[in-house]
Amino acid sequence: MMKKLECAAFLREKDHYVILTHRRPDGDTLGSAAALCRGLRQLGKTAFVLENPEITPKYTHLLEGLTTDHPENATVIAVDVASPGMLPVNCPEKEIALRIDHHGSATPFAALEWVEPEIAACGEIIYDLLMELGVELDREMGNALYTAVSTDTGCFRYPNTRSHSHLVAAACRKASPDIFAINQALFDTNSLGRLRIQGWMVENARFLQEGKVCICAIPLEVEKKLGLCEDDMENISGFPRSIEGVKVAATLRQQPDGLVKISVRAVPGCDAAAICEKFGGGGHKGAAGANINAPIEEAANMVAEAIGEV
Amino acid sequence: MMKKLECAAFLREKDHYVILTHRRPDGDTLGSAAALCRGLRQLGKTAFVLENPEITPKYTHLLEGLTTDHPENATVIAVDVASPGMLPVNCPEKEIALRIDHHGSATPFAALEWVEPEIAACGEIIYDLLMELGVELDREMGNALYTAVSTDTGCFRYPNTRSHSHLVAAACRKASPDIFAINQALFDTNSLGRLRIQGWMVENARFLQEGKVCICAIPLEVEKKLGLCEDDMENISGFPRSIEGVKVAATLRQQPDGLVKISVRAVPGCDAAAICEKFGGGGHKGAAGANINAPIEEAANMVAEAIGEV
Repeated sequence: MMKKLECAAFLREKDHYVILTHRRPDGDTLGSAAALCRGLRQLGKTAFVLENPEITPKYTHLLEGLTTDHPENATVIAVDVASPGMLPVNCPEKEIALRIDHHGSATPFAALEWVEPEIAACGEIIYDLLMELGVELDREMGNALYTAVSTDTGCFRYPNTRSHSHLVAAACRKASPDIFAINQALFDTNSLGRLRIQGWMVENARFLQEGKVCICAIPLEVEKKLGLCEDDMENISGFPRSIEGVKVAATLRQQPDGLVKISVRAVPGCDAAAICEKFGGGGHKGAAGANINAPIEEAANMVAEAIGEV
Repeated sequence: MMKKLECAAFLREKDHYVILTHRRPDGDTLGSAAALCRGLRQLGKTAFVLENPEITPKYTHLLEGLTTDHPENATVIAVDVASPGMLPVNCPEKEIALRIDHHGSATPFAALEWVEPEIAACGEIIYDLLMELGVELDREMGNALYTAVSTDTGCFRYPNTRSHSHLVAAACRKASPDIFAINQALFDTNSLGRLRIQGWMVENARFLQEGKVCICAIPLEVEKKLGLCEDDMENISGFPRSIEGVKVAATLRQQPDGLVKISVRAVPGCDAAAICEKFGGGGHKGAAGANINAPIEEAANMVAEAIGEV
């Protein structure tokens, strides 16, 4: 609360803002930056978002008309940037005046810091700040903040989602008629490659313990044969966990160097981390990972055995 | 607003309530009934939900401890029941004192009617009513209303979702820590049968017009071979529309009597109804259906031709 007032006072006082997004930018950092930039402009300030060379086509529309590549003599704000190492590659200076973030483990690196680790999306903090500043949410801000909140909460399904996430979504829907189209584009679209590998996994998964355990070992040659790209494989380890009855799912992917990457997902009551720790890996109870240096079929047998023990 | 006050006054005055849900009950009718029943009990009233013989295992927990099969001399309330024909088969009397619903096309059949066609889920109306009655949302009511709202909005993705839907979800999350688990069970679980038919569809779909059109013809023998049940096929016509780049998707299912059922889904800008009207069917621009009396491959060709013309 104190931080909100402090940040609002800072933004009212200063001008000539350049907003930084993080490397490999996602919907949250880009949506947060876009909404904050538009809000500051509504208040009569000069504001830009620094171009992010790693932005993907899915999100370029968010920054249309907002970007600059000349951040000289600006008041620099970082949004959703957890550490100096996550600042964009073209970030010209390391003097950050204000950092707004929701990553709890972050190292402070700005003059003024507002970090809310309990909040699911940085966009939710930006929303509170804009309201404090008296900004009226318009259609574009609504779209930007909805993109931020919905992507970071997996469309309100991840465990980080809170009451506040829905309140921000409610405000975005009031401001914009585009939310249905945004949902379709972000959450209701599957690449052919993604659907092909899912189909392959269903047909080639090994089910153990009456279907409670599912092990999917994906040889490199299958990924090549199906013509998959990294986007097709994003969060693929969540897929076998979604099969009815499955409580623990392990996905094994063969790397070009021969190492096998293992991702384990588990429902509450099972412990993915305990399984991965057997191979020197780790993580959370719900999601964990490890590497095994073995042929993929052998690695799958090792994982099956480890799951049986845990 | 008037209706809300009228209904609240009615519920405060009367007692001995039995709440009716609709045939083939879904999350909205069951969640609405459960929350209303619990709310009335919190106010010191006697309230039950009439057992619904068609309830599926997915939802039985919602009515635990709430049901009765003796609705004699009760004040009868129907929730989410669009017409007398949708009253449950074991409904003993047709004298309904109060009907709360969100189906705009409904025929009035109760003494007092509160119908809000603009509201996505009946559970949202129940929420407003409970707040008017001064009920404090508890964990079970939160779970019931969240189930109602999330199922009827497709987890906030269907075009009927509004700001109000998110506001009710926000209140449910405040009342209950179970929302993540509910989301996992309702939206993040796929039957093996469902995944198999999706895999089959991806491999056997016909793509036309550079992938903008997708036609999936599912012969009855494929459904039999994969061992599918009706649950596996629920809303299956939405699946090919979700393939990246697809603007119009037609799913054809062969019926046991030889008739071919066609479901067309289209993104905004395309017209599913115009395509189905060519075969004597109809619907909305986004979703429409028709029947064709022809061998399935021939029917698929006819649909492809119709799409080309529209």
